[in-house]
Amino acid sequence: MSLGEFDLIARYFDRPVRRSALGIGDDCALLTPQPGMQLAVSCDMLVEGRHFLSTVDPERLGHKALAVNLSDLAACGAEPLAFTLALALPQADEAFLAAFSRGLLTLADASGCELIGGDTTRGPLNICISVFGQVPLRATGTGALLRSGARPGDDLYVSGTLGDARLALEVFRGTVWLDGSSFDAVRKAMELPQPRISLGMGLRGLVSSAIDVSDGLLGDLAHVLQRSGVGAVVEVDSLPLSEVMRSQPLSLQRLCALSGGDDYELLFTAPAEHAAGVAAAGAAAGVAVTRIGRITERSDAGGARPRLVDAQGRPVDHLERSFDHFRT
Amino acid sequence: MSLGEFDLIARYFDRPVRRSALGIGDDCALLTPQPGMQLAVSCDMLVEGRHFLSTVDPERLGHKALAVNLSDLAACGAEPLAFTLALALPQADEAFLAAFSRGLLTLADASGCELIGGDTTRGPLNICISVFGQVPLRATGTGALLRSGARPGDDLYVSGTLGDARLALEVFRGTVWLDGSSFDAVRKAMELPQPRISLGMGLRGLVSSAIDVSDGLLGDLAHVLQRSGVGAVVEVDSLPLSEVMRSQPLSLQRLCALSGGDDYELLFTAPAEHAAGVAAAGAAAGVAVTRIGRITERSDAGGARPRLVDAQGRPVDHLERSFDHFRT
Repeated sequence: MSLGEFDLIARYFDRPVRRSALGIGDDCALLTPQPGMQLAVSCDMLVEGRHFLSTVDPERLGHKALAVNLSDLAACGAEPLAFTLALALPQADEAFLAAFSRGLLTLADASGCELIGGDTTRGPLNICISVFGQVPLRATGTGALLRSGARPGDDLYVSGTLGDARLALEVFRGTVWLDGSSFDAVRKAMELPQPRISLGMGLRGLVSSAIDVSDGLLGDLAHVLQRSGVGAVVEVDSLPLSEVMRSQPLSLQRLCALSGGDDYELLFTAPAEHAAGVAAAGAAAGVAVTRIGRITERSDAGGARPRLVDAQGRPVDHLERSFDHFRT
Repeated sequence: MSLGEFDLIARYFDRPVRRSALGIGDDCALLTPQPGMQLAVSCDMLVEGRHFLSTVDPERLGHKALAVNLSDLAACGAEPLAFTLALALPQADEAFLAAFSRGLLTLADASGCELIGGDTTRGPLNICISVFGQVPLRATGTGALLRSGARPGDDLYVSGTLGDARLALEVFRGTVWLDGSSFDAVRKAMELPQPRISLGMGLRGLVSSAIDVSDGLLGDLAHVLQRSGVGAVVEVDSLPLSEVMRSQPLSLQRLCALSGGDDYELLFTAPAEHAAGVAAAGAAAGVAVTRIGRITERSDAGGARPRLVDAQGRPVDHLERSFDHFRT
C-alpha cells in the first residue's frame, strides 16, 4: 500500500468548503447556522452484509451512505448544510475509494451538503456519516417536522412508491425471480434511494408529523403513533407501488410495501385542510404523494399498531414484524 | 438475545436532554448554539485491535471513546454541548452495554456534553462518536483555536505528560516489563485519558495555534507546522514525563514521548508576551503546562519536520515516524 492515511484522505475527500466556516484539516470543523435557524443532526452507521451487500458497486454505496442520512434531514424538513464521514476499511483500496467518493460527493454536491470532516481507519468495512441541516427556530418552538404531532382525523401520506428495495433483496436472496430490466429497476431503488429533501422542506408548516421509511412502513408508522399517542388506519390497497411491484403476487406486494424497509420515502400526517397544500408541495418537489389512511384515537387494545383495511374497509391480517437489527 | 434494538438503546442510552432542543427518538436531534457562537464538530471512529484491545474494561472504553472526541473540542477551545454515538456490536451484550454506557455517560455528565442521538447495529465492534461544541464567533473570524496561526518566535507548549499510553502499549506487547503499580499508572493514561477542555477554553485569546496530541508529538506538531508554514525547535530534555517514564531508558523515553500517540494532551503555541497568561490558564485548569521549544522560520530543507535538540542545544536524532494507521 503506497498511500498514507493523510494522503489518501486528501486525494479523495479533501475539498475546499464553500459554506462552512472551516472544513477538513483541523481538530474540528466549524459550522454557523444562519440566524434564526437551529441545527438538525442525524447519524447512521452502515455495515457490510447488514446494510449493503459486499458485491455492491462502490459508487452506489457512496451515494446510499449519504442518502440514508439526508433522508433523516428530509423527515425533519431540514435544509442540508454539511456532513462528516468516518470510514473503516480493511485496506486502502484506491479503486474503491475513487468510486465511493465519486458517488458520495456527487450526491453531496446535488444536495448542497458539504463534507467538513471525519476519520479514516483500518478495520472491517464500516461507514458512519453524521449529517447537519438547519430548520427554522420559531417563537412557538422548533420549525422541524417531528414524529410527535399526529392528531386523530389527520390524513396519512407517503411519498414515492414502497417496497421495491425489499423486492430487490428477495431477488438477491433467491426467493423471487425477475427479468433483467425489472431487476435493474428495483435494484436501483435499493442502491440509489433519493432522499426527499425538497419535499421535506416544502412540507414545513403543513404537516403534523413526519418520519422517513427506513425500517418498513409499519415499523416506522409505529414510532409516529407511539410518539403522538394516537392510532391509525392504513388502507393497504392505496399503498403506492411501482409497475414491477404491481406484477407480483398480492402477498409479496404487501410484505414488501408494509415491512420492506430501505424505502427512504417520507411518511407524514396532515390535517384535512392542508390536503391541497400537501399536493402542491409534492408537485413542486416532483414527487408523488399518496394518501394511504388516517390517524385515529388510540385504541386500548391496539397499542401503536395500526389497523390494516382493504379497499372495502375489511380488516387485513399482516403479521410480519418490522425489520429490527437485533431480532433478525 | 431478548432485547430488541430499540429497547436496548432506550435502556442504556436514552435520557432526557437538558440543554439541547431535542434528543434521541426522532429522525434528527436539534441543537441551538447560543447567539454569537458557532458550532465546532469533530468525529472519531474506534476499532477493536487498532484503537483498543479486546480485553479492555468496557467502562474504560466508554470513557475513552468520548474522551478522544472531547480532546478535539479542547484543541479548538470549544465548550462541549452534545454528541451522537453510532455503535456496531457483534451481539447485544447487556453486561458490555451497561459498563460501556456507564463510562461514557459519566464523562458526558462531567463534561456537560449530552447524548442526543445515534445509531446501533450488529457488526464487528465499532464505536463512532461525533461531538459538538461551541466557540465564540468574532468580528475578525472564528474564536476557535486553529492549527494555522503559529508564528516564528512563539513559544511551544504541551500540557500534562507525554508517552505513558505508549509505554503501557509496550507492556501489552511484551517489549517492556513494569511492576504492578507502575503498569496501573501508565495503563490508566492509556485507557482513561483526560480531555483538556477547561485548559482549551482558558487558552482562547492567548494562543496562536493548538492541536491535541493523538498520533504522537512529532506527527501532530508536523500538522501545525505545515498549516502555519513555519518550523520548530523541540528541546527533548524539556519534554514533560511521568515518574514511571523517567525511570525508563532514555531511548524508550524519547520514543514514547515523541512518537507515542494516544496522549490527548494539548500542544500549542503562544507569543512570548502571553507566557504569564498561559501559565495562569494552566493553573486555573489544574493542568501542568510545559514550554518545550519554540517556533522558527521554516527551513527549505526541513519541511514540516521540527529540529530536535538536547539541553545543550545539540541536535538529537529521532527517526521513528509518527503513527499512521495505513502504514503500520
